[in-house]
Amino acid sequence: MTLPNGLTPEAARERAARAYELDRKHVFHSWSAQKSLHPMVITAAQGCHVWDGDGNRLLDFSSQMVNTNIGHQHPKVVAAIQEQAATLCTVSPGYVNDARSEAARLIAEHTPGELNRIFFTNGGADAVEHAVRMARLHTGRYKVLARYRSYHGGTETAVNLTGDPRRWPNDHGNAGVVHFFGPFLYRSQFHATTEVEETERALQHLEQTIAFEGPSTIAAIILESVPGTAGIMVPPPGYLAGVRALCDKYDIVMIADEVMAGFGRTGKWFAIDHFEVAPDLLTFAKGVNSGYVPLGGVAIAPHIAATFDDRAYPGGLTYSGHPLATAAAVATINAMREEGIVENAADMGERVLGPGLRELADRHPSVGEVRGLGVFWAVELVRDRATREPLAPYGGTSPAMTETVAAAKAAGLLLFVNFNRLHVVPPCTITEAEAKEGLAILDQALTVADGHTV
Amino acid sequence: MTLPNGLTPEAARERAARAYELDRKHVFHSWSAQKSLHPMVITAAQGCHVWDGDGNRLLDFSSQMVNTNIGHQHPKVVAAIQEQAATLCTVSPGYVNDARSEAARLIAEHTPGELNRIFFTNGGADAVEHAVRMARLHTGRYKVLARYRSYHGGTETAVNLTGDPRRWPNDHGNAGVVHFFGPFLYRSQFHATTEVEETERALQHLEQTIAFEGPSTIAAIILESVPGTAGIMVPPPGYLAGVRALCDKYDIVMIADEVMAGFGRTGKWFAIDHFEVAPDLLTFAKGVNSGYVPLGGVAIAPHIAATFDDRAYPGGLTYSGHPLATAAAVATINAMREEGIVENAADMGERVLGPGLRELADRHPSVGEVRGLGVFWAVELVRDRATREPLAPYGGTSPAMTETVAAAKAAGLLLFVNFNRLHVVPPCTITEAEAKEGLAILDQALTVADGHTV
Ligand SMILES: Cc1ncc(COP(=O)(O)O)c(C=O)c1O
Ligand SMILES: Cc1ncc(COP(=O)(O)O)c(C=O)c1O
Repeated sequence: MTLPNGLTPEAARERAARAYELDRKHVFHSWSAQKSLHPMVITAAQGCHVWDGDGNRLLDFSSQMVNTNIGHQHPKVVAAIQEQAATLCTVSPGYVNDARSEAARLIAEHTPGELNRIFFTNGGADAVEHAVRMARLHTGRYKVLARYRSYHGGTETAVNLTGDPRRWPNDHGNAGVVHFFGPFLYRSQFHATTEVEETERALQHLEQTIAFEGPSTIAAIILESVPGTAGIMVPPPGYLAGVRALCDKYDIVMIADEVMAGFGRTGKWFAIDHFEVAPDLLTFAKGVNSGYVPLGGVAIAPHIAATFDDRAYPGGLTYSGHPLATAAAVATINAMREEGIVENAADMGERVLGPGLRELADRHPSVGEVRGLGVFWAVELVRDRATREPLAPYGGTSPAMTETVAAAKAAGLLLFVNFNRLHVVPPCTITEAEAKEGLAILDQALTVADGHTV
Repeated sequence: MTLPNGLTPEAARERAARAYELDRKHVFHSWSAQKSLHPMVITAAQGCHVWDGDGNRLLDFSSQMVNTNIGHQHPKVVAAIQEQAATLCTVSPGYVNDARSEAARLIAEHTPGELNRIFFTNGGADAVEHAVRMARLHTGRYKVLARYRSYHGGTETAVNLTGDPRRWPNDHGNAGVVHFFGPFLYRSQFHATTEVEETERALQHLEQTIAFEGPSTIAAIILESVPGTAGIMVPPPGYLAGVRALCDKYDIVMIADEVMAGFGRTGKWFAIDHFEVAPDLLTFAKGVNSGYVPLGGVAIAPHIAATFDDRAYPGGLTYSGHPLATAAAVATINAMREEGIVENAADMGERVLGPGLRELADRHPSVGEVRGLGVFWAVELVRDRATREPLAPYGGTSPAMTETVAAAKAAGLLLFVNFNRLHVVPPCTITEAEAKEGLAILDQALTVADGHTV
């Protein structure tokens, strides 16, 4: 038997051992203390599955970094990359290229409102950097409001916008960012007990923050339409419309960060579509081409783009609108349309993952809450359902979490993990059988977490 | 006759027209006022040539953004991308991947000194962002010294380090950057008349800047080993060694930005190799895989890496060490070794481009100076050789420049242009015949510039 990469398990094991050795010697890893790392090797992947260095197959409920929305190695996207590679790998952003043009057209077709001009970047962080720059230059103001419990990327401005502990070592108080609290009923900042109350109070809090910071000082409000890494807190009805209204009232640019939530993840093309709101700027990456080639970007409303009609936009990058990356986006978006992949994500969420996860929550005392939509779900683990004490502290981990995740992995399931949460974020292409298989493994793993409850 | 992309000129023209129309409607371009753009379409490329939308072949003396060091569509790199695409396009940076491991090994083999740990990014700007972060956390200091006449990228920290007018609209005085002057004998800040004097005075100036800024406040000095976009000012003997000595004396991290100068451009693997100096951090992108897939990174000295042995490095990105991008790097570096591409760059510089450009300088009154090495040359155009008045103002352009560049293009030559300079920066794979053909076209074009001299 061979793996999908054509290697025998034996050959794969040898290659994995060599890769591991070189990795430990030469590769510096993101977000990590380097010495104690024991990273898993991945040698092959297909659809919703990956194979580790020992040839074990794992069901990928993480979509890697929540980016393989069309699953691994989609044949149409692989073919498009190969074809574009044979034709033209790279051109300077100053020239016109047909792959880039077509990707921009397709993206513009799906973005909400009139967000019809696309500035391409290499990933999510630089998309956020440029969106903020556009907002600052458009308004002539500097300050940006961002949410606590959010992630916006690793470059300096993006990490300072971020509302999670990864910001702290990079926060020198000079990035022009002010954080506010968003709605999150399960852990309400506003002492609310209903969604209606949470929405109302979160919007009051935001307007008060604007009032005391000074509307004339604020260029933009940035927020994830549905915060991802920070916990998949689907905003309650009315919240995003309320933010839109505040932005209109105070002439503030609204930036929706859809890097993780966009391109089908929530069962619509963009998460903000659930709320019928159009931001002024929308950042994307990941799902745009499932990360097959690094790509991100900003979709721009006409009135912001117009600011740079006659005045140079002071930003750019060598690989803006890279042919290989945008050709992968064209193939990805077309495949998603042809194969009803966004609809599948919605259906799996409604019919299988949502009901299945709620059923697990009923049975497992370690589950404080499940929430989400589409293929975008968080399972919030607690030591005590009454007090809601998390199973790991904010910003940290715990033996309880580590053991639970290890149990899932040993049984063949990869999850996306953040603090006290397990995220169930499989590809949008997941089948009902795969979803159920994953839920069954999760069911077992949660008994480990249950053992750590009071 | 068909183009290298397999299209007939007629079909290529149709596709180009459609790409152009969509571009103007949907693509937002780097560093530009959007309304007045009339970008050229590129439909195909091969080696040192590109084809425009009308099927005209142009000799590419720009290497696009000075990134296609191995030329366009190198068959070995194209094949490697296709093969990796078929195997495994993407994995999360947290896992080990063999393409990434091997790329890190190969890069480490060529970087100077002990820069053996590689942090991968998507491009040059984020490489710079992360290098600066490492330096700040390693030293516990914030301020960074950077050169005037430099370019370090488009994200917020990178553009604030940049010493060119593109920084200005993004400069809020809060990025923790202080600029100093580097050596540039042709336009000496130090009233020097010899290289020895220029080196000595530039180092005095730098040490004085350190003294008055306060050594205990300075995390890093960043500089391009040979400044690229800003004018290819090869540092005079002793300068980089002097900077290294100052960094050692004051415990400041030395960051060499080799995004443009690295990977063969100067006729050595890294530009800093000409000076036998090893920085503490080295940033790269572009030439590492000729930009066939977006990739950048930081090569890290052991003592800096050790800072993050037990303490988490607070930075990262979804596509760090992307399999497709690193597979392209492996193929590129191997092809450069197998085919003696770095040696070819050195040879073309010494035997053809250097002598050829100096000969043009002798004959054309518009040429104030030519300087460079390898396939990395600047032709500095002046209105008046005596006063050295540039043919376009700093930060701007002029009809004289525009006409000169247009004349070259009409005759089939693409150049890299910055203010009053033409950069001759072809692929490292350029042949003697191609180099001579380009020089002949440049010769004609310079007569246009000559018409604008006093
Ligand atoms: C919402 C959001 N914004 C921005 C980013 C940063 O994207 P990248 O890692 O591609 O820089 C992420 C990455 O997880 C994200 O989830
Ligand atoms: C020296 C140098 N550093 C950094 C960069 C930024 O690289 P990128 O455009 O890939 O972000 C460039 C780009 O030209 C460069 O020349």
